[in-house]
Amino acid sequence: MGHTLDHSIALLTRTPAALDALLRDLPDTWTRYNEGDKTWSAFDIVGHLVHLERTNWLPRARLILRDGETKTFQPFDRWGHVKESEGKSLGQVLDEFAQVRAENLTEVRGWNLGPAQLALPGRHPAFGSVTLSELLATWAAHDLTHLHQMTRVMAHQYRDAVGPYAAYLGVMQCGGHGA
Amino acid sequence: MGHTLDHSIALLTRTPAALDALLRDLPDTWTRYNEGDKTWSAFDIVGHLVHLERTNWLPRARLILRDGETKTFQPFDRWGHVKESEGKSLGQVLDEFAQVRAENLTEVRGWNLGPAQLALPGRHPAFGSVTLSELLATWAAHDLTHLHQMTRVMAHQYRDAVGPYAAYLGVMQCGGHGA
Repeated sequence: MGHTLDHSIALLTRTPAALDALLRDLPDTWTRYNEGDKTWSAFDIVGHLVHLERTNWLPRARLILRDGETKTFQPFDRWGHVKESEGKSLGQVLDEFAQVRAENLTEVRGWNLGPAQLALPGRHPAFGSVTLSELLATWAAHDLTHLHQMTRVMAHQYRDAVGPYAAYLGVMQCGGHGA
Repeated sequence: MGHTLDHSIALLTRTPAALDALLRDLPDTWTRYNEGDKTWSAFDIVGHLVHLERTNWLPRARLILRDGETKTFQPFDRWGHVKESEGKSLGQVLDEFAQVRAENLTEVRGWNLGPAQLALPGRHPAFGSVTLSELLATWAAHDLTHLHQMTRVMAHQYRDAVGPYAAYLGVMQCGGHGA
């Protein structure tokens, strides 16, 4: 299946409300615990989504539209959210996510991208040529990868509580596969 | 970490609204496609959650409270949702989920379960003795395992669209591990 920008935008529009409905005012058991040293809690994951909203997706898209492949994307800091989220409540970080995502989607809609622009190439620091279409599709799929991770992190907190059922819960067999 | 019933109820309360915010009116690309033969779409997963809400969690909890370990849980049909969801819209199935979940949580709250009741054992057809506490914790963790699965199924639809980024998206490396 190819990429339809409207489908990406439809998903990107819904993620903040879905995370809000799932996480706001949920006990810390679910939101503030991680999977161990150098891993992320649900709180950290929302912070990461905010951080990339500011530093990754739109700066890279603008670079493609302006400079094509002549300039390489700036790397982003995988731990950049830690300082940004420090001392904030989960509610604050959820609010920030909703706001910055809405602003970014307004900007992207304003570009009125057609097939020719979506096919424009940019240069990724690790794997070279990518199209604007691939970047924007990844923006949406990246929401899903972190929802996937978040459900695993949350389920991890119930590993003991579920007793023998752990063997039947796929999420508790997930090895993390990088996110 | 042990099990706190209030924490399970807090999560169980939020899942229908989270799924509603994520899925309602989303293009069929995301909600009606699966991962191939004998796999589930996001639509199917919501149907499965409704089906178990009716046939699994509360019937088993009631059986433990009434008969303890003397009676074995009735097995449930892993494909029982197919007939139930047939011809319905995703919006209808989301509405059903919200309604039956709310009814079930009202019933469980009404039981005013204390530690002695939560420690009561029941008999699972596959792995024998489980406590009411483990059953109710699994009810919550089961929401997470299917959210985990759903994000993987949805991301699968973008495998081509993201191009070389697929290698960086953990959700696209997930082998399914049973759900």
